[in-house]
Amino acid sequence: MDNAPSARKIRDIKTLRDRSSERRKTGLFVAEGERLCAEIPKEDLVEVFMSSGYRASHPTERCDYVLKNGEFERLADTKHPQGILAIARQRRYALSDILGGSLYIILDTIQDPGNLGTIIRTAEAAGVAVVIMNKGCAEIYSPKVVRSTMGSIFRVPFLCTDDLGDVIARMKQSGVRIYAADMSGKNLSEIKFADKRAFIIGNEANGITEDVLKLADEKVSIPMAGKVKSLNAAVSSAILMYH
Amino acid sequence: MDNAPSARKIRDIKTLRDRSSERRKTGLFVAEGERLCAEIPKEDLVEVFMSSGYRASHPTERCDYVLKNGEFERLADTKHPQGILAIARQRRYALSDILGGSLYIILDTIQDPGNLGTIIRTAEAAGVAVVIMNKGCAEIYSPKVVRSTMGSIFRVPFLCTDDLGDVIARMKQSGVRIYAADMSGKNLSEIKFADKRAFIIGNEANGITEDVLKLADEKVSIPMAGKVKSLNAAVSSAILMYH
Repeated sequence: MDNAPSARKIRDIKTLRDRSSERRKTGLFVAEGERLCAEIPKEDLVEVFMSSGYRASHPTERCDYVLKNGEFERLADTKHPQGILAIARQRRYALSDILGGSLYIILDTIQDPGNLGTIIRTAEAAGVAVVIMNKGCAEIYSPKVVRSTMGSIFRVPFLCTDDLGDVIARMKQSGVRIYAADMSGKNLSEIKFADKRAFIIGNEANGITEDVLKLADEKVSIPMAGKVKSLNAAVSSAILMYH
Repeated sequence: MDNAPSARKIRDIKTLRDRSSERRKTGLFVAEGERLCAEIPKEDLVEVFMSSGYRASHPTERCDYVLKNGEFERLADTKHPQGILAIARQRRYALSDILGGSLYIILDTIQDPGNLGTIIRTAEAAGVAVVIMNKGCAEIYSPKVVRSTMGSIFRVPFLCTDDLGDVIARMKQSGVRIYAADMSGKNLSEIKFADKRAFIIGNEANGITEDVLKLADEKVSIPMAGKVKSLNAAVSSAILMYH
């Protein structure tokens, strides 16, 4: 039987949708849309909410709560919701568990949620082992980031750290060479990249912070024609990960 | 002397900001923000508007109209405007004038303004000669596209066409080989690309339309690990343009 959620339950979901503090406290997050919900690993799925219209056309799928279409729209984070959202458990990874790969990306204060989500999506496609983020990055479980990953958030290991220095030191110890994307660096076509490598990508407006830049073994630049001063952060990441 | 704009003038600018029909009719568009306004070619600059706060800290720059800060915020398209926007003339290019390059990008129904702007920005950096768009693409002079180009809109030649078939036929005649980005294509690392080449990039959700796909000489795919079904359109474009 499909239950209507209580007013209290609806309020809780909205809080979870809007507040990172609530997401941190509960270890949960909201995933919205048909495709995203379908990609949530079973063991991470907590509750499914549907609009009555969506439910009518998907009668056999798992559904815990049904809302009137108008109510669902107010619960959703997008302007034109598809009619399904789910509450899921956040994943946690430990660096020691995920230091066996050959390609890493390190994000220094990537603030745009769309950029961050797109980088995570591209990272999965490029075979990146771990996406490492400092605390200045957008919150990975915010609704816009989650959507922009197109489901990769459920599959790409990641690490949020307030000590990039420590993480990078441990990566170096495990034999990973650290390249910083920086305009003053060597042209990427002239570099013979190490087999185990990590690329640091900096903030959209300000690039990599000085303290972090010092931790790199080498600086790499993407050649730019015309009068372009920088590339979009997701674009730079993609070019480096796919090089 | 700094004039306050009339109510009528303000209304006109808002119409120009919000309506593509008005932009088409007048051949003008709105560019917002300090950096964008600084990059408008002199011959294309029509009028400059500043908030009184911005004007106070930029007393010697060209400024045609000053608005109270609150008024300026209502005129601006962004949530936190910097305090400067300008009206500029649109550029028009003819295919015959711009068919001398070696790298082209052809966009089939790229609908997200941020993606379109980012592709134009990346195209300048990658040395693309012309960005070709069909009518299904976002409007190039809409405020969000203009902002996302970060100024490249003033420098990258482009063509909006309702007949991609004709344009592609003329490109082929001039010796350009046409590659379509499509998952069923050959892995890009296995292709020896022609010196004069164009990449077709398709819609974010649906890829390249069948009619357009038929016009390509060859299909090319970007290898994807994991369970990723597609890459972001701006990311795919970047990887191909920079390959």
